[in-house]
Amino acid sequence: MSELRFDPLKKRWVILAPERRRRPHEFLVPQSGTPEQDITTCPFEYGREALTDPEIMIIPRDTPPSSGPNWQVRVVPSRFPALRVEQELSRDGSWIYDRVSGVGAHELIVEGPEHCLEMADMRHEDIQLVLSAWRARLRDLRRDVRVRYVLIFKNHGAEAGAVFSHPHSLLLATPVIPPEVVNELQAAREHFERKERCVFCDLVKHERQLGERIAIETDSFVALEPYASAHPFETWLLPKSHGHDFASATDDQLAGLAGILRDLLRRFRVLLNEPPYNLVLHTAPTPQPRPGHPQYWSTLELDFHWHIEIVPRLTRVAGFEWGSGFSINPTPPEEAARYLRKTDPEGERT
Amino acid sequence: MSELRFDPLKKRWVILAPERRRRPHEFLVPQSGTPEQDITTCPFEYGREALTDPEIMIIPRDTPPSSGPNWQVRVVPSRFPALRVEQELSRDGSWIYDRVSGVGAHELIVEGPEHCLEMADMRHEDIQLVLSAWRARLRDLRRDVRVRYVLIFKNHGAEAGAVFSHPHSLLLATPVIPPEVVNELQAAREHFERKERCVFCDLVKHERQLGERIAIETDSFVALEPYASAHPFETWLLPKSHGHDFASATDDQLAGLAGILRDLLRRFRVLLNEPPYNLVLHTAPTPQPRPGHPQYWSTLELDFHWHIEIVPRLTRVAGFEWGSGFSINPTPPEEAARYLRKTDPEGERT
Repeated sequence: MSELRFDPLKKRWVILAPERRRRPHEFLVPQSGTPEQDITTCPFEYGREALTDPEIMIIPRDTPPSSGPNWQVRVVPSRFPALRVEQELSRDGSWIYDRVSGVGAHELIVEGPEHCLEMADMRHEDIQLVLSAWRARLRDLRRDVRVRYVLIFKNHGAEAGAVFSHPHSLLLATPVIPPEVVNELQAAREHFERKERCVFCDLVKHERQLGERIAIETDSFVALEPYASAHPFETWLLPKSHGHDFASATDDQLAGLAGILRDLLRRFRVLLNEPPYNLVLHTAPTPQPRPGHPQYWSTLELDFHWHIEIVPRLTRVAGFEWGSGFSINPTPPEEAARYLRKTDPEGERT
Repeated sequence: MSELRFDPLKKRWVILAPERRRRPHEFLVPQSGTPEQDITTCPFEYGREALTDPEIMIIPRDTPPSSGPNWQVRVVPSRFPALRVEQELSRDGSWIYDRVSGVGAHELIVEGPEHCLEMADMRHEDIQLVLSAWRARLRDLRRDVRVRYVLIFKNHGAEAGAVFSHPHSLLLATPVIPPEVVNELQAAREHFERKERCVFCDLVKHERQLGERIAIETDSFVALEPYASAHPFETWLLPKSHGHDFASATDDQLAGLAGILRDLLRRFRVLLNEPPYNLVLHTAPTPQPRPGHPQYWSTLELDFHWHIEIVPRLTRVAGFEWGSGFSINPTPPEEAARYLRKTDPEGERT
C-alpha cells in the first residue's frame, strides 16, 4: 500500500508508491525513449472504451453521433494508482518521522476522442468541456472529507513526462496539501492579514500597470510571465476577478479560460515549435478545520486566488536546481512576454 | 548582467542569467541529444590547458610526470558564468519584488586528467584530492564577504544535466542562501533550540539503531536512504562525528569520505548499470551577521551538520512533481538500502 512520508529536514511530503515499483534492473531502460502509446493500441480511442476500467464520468458530445459511444471527455481511473480511495485514512508517526496512508484518487481525463487533436488544436468549446470535467471532478472528490487537495495537471509530450500521447490531463487527490501550494497559501494569507487585499489581485493590478510582463490580456484573464520566472516562458493564467476556488468558477469563466489557454498554447507552438509542457491548476484546498494540526488550514482559504501555471520544458533540470532549490533561467520574463505578445497565435511555426 | 530575484509567492530565489540566454528558436534543439564533448575536442584533457581560461588552482600529481603539465585536479572559471565576482553587490526591491545583483562565482573542477576515468574508477587518493579541491575553494571563496553560500555539486551523465563528459564537478558561489539549504538550516535550528542536540547526529544514531535504511557504514561515515526519500536510491553520506562546516573537515575525514563515496558509486554502477546521477554537498553558510535581514542567519550555524546527497536519475521529473512539490517515489528507502547492502562494489554489472 502506498503512503505519504514527511521529510522533517526538507519540510515536504513524498508519496511512496511501491505498487508502481520496479526492480533495480528495470530502471536500466533508457529514459529518453519513453514509448508513447501508438494509435493502433491506444486504450483511449473512441470505440475502445472496454480497454480501460469503467469510466468515472463522461461529458457527451454536443452533436451526438448517429451510432457508437457518445462522449467528448471521459474520466477513467489510473491503471497504476499512486493513491486509492479504498484504503483507511491513518496518520501516525514515530520519533521525528510522520506518515499518512495513501488515501486519495488518481484519475486520467481523456480530453477528446481524437488521438492527434492536441488541446491547441481543439475548438474553444471542447477545451471548455475539459475544464468543466476538471471542475466536476474537483466538486465530487471534495465530498470525501479525507481528501485535502485535488491536484489537476497536464503533461504534454514525453519530455514533460507524458506516458500517453492521446490528449489527456491527470488528477491526484491527496490527504495532505502539496508543499508548493502550502507556500502560496501562506504568502497569500500573510499579505491578506497585513493588507486585507488578495496578493494575486494586487499582482494582476501591478503587472497590468507595468505591462512589460503581460503576454496576453482578455476581458476576464491575463497571461503573465512571473517576476521571478524559474523557467523560460513560464506563464501564469489568472482570472482578473477574485475567486479562491476553481470549483466555484462559472461557465463564463471557463469559457474565458479556454480562450486564453488555447491562444497561449498556439503561441507556444508558433514561437517554440510545439514544446513539451507541464500545466498545473492551483486552487484553494478543501476547507476542513483540523485543530492541533498546524500543517492544515483551519479556515476557508478565501484569500487565495485560483490560477493556472504552465512551463514549456525547454531546459533540463540538473543537479544544481534539485540540490539547491534555485533555478537558473536564461530568459528574463520581460523578454519572454515581449516575444509572446508579438507572436500570432494562428501564424506559421518559425 | 545576471541577477537573483525572489519569488514572493513561492518563497524562493531564481537566478536570471540572460548572458546564457538563447533566442526562442534556439530552444528547438531536442533536449535528449545533448552533445557531450568528444575526447578529441575536450578542453579539459591533459596538455590542452590553453583551451580554457587560466586556472584558479591546481593540485599536482603525487608522482610528477617527467615532462608536460603537472596537475591531478584543476579548477577553472566557467565559460558561461551565471554569477561573477566582477560585479557590484546591490540589493534592492520595489513593491513585493526583491532582487540581488548576480555577484558570485561559477567554477568547474576538472577531477583528473583522464577523459574516461569516472570518479567510481579513480583511486581513493585521487578522489580525496577532488574533495580537497572542494574544501580549498570553499575556504577561499568565503573570504569574499559578499558570498553567502558556496554550492558544490556534480552532474554525471547527460540525463543528469552534465554538459561535459570529462569527469568534473561544479561550484556556484551565491549572494543568498539556497532555498533547500534554508529549509535544512531552519529544521536543524528548531531541533537544536528545543533539544540542544544536532538533528543530523540524532538521525544517524536513530538510523543506526534501526538499521533498515543504512546502505553502507564505515568507521567514520554512514550512507543511508532517507526516511522520506524523494527518488529511488536517493542516498545521504553523513560523517558520524559532528561538524557543521565542510571547510573545517580534516584530511582524515576527506579520506573516509572518498572511501565511502567510491564504494557507493561502484554499488550504483553494479546495481543500476552506471546511472546518471546528481551529487550535492550541503554545508553551513558563511557566518555573516546581517541584522534586519530575516533571510540571513545571524549566528554561526554550529547546529548544522555537513553531508552529501546523491540521487541517481532513474525517473523523470514530470509536471506533478514540479507543480506540487511532491515527489512520487516507487522504491521505498528500506528496499533500496537492502539492495545496496547486498551489492558487491567490485562485482559485475547485472
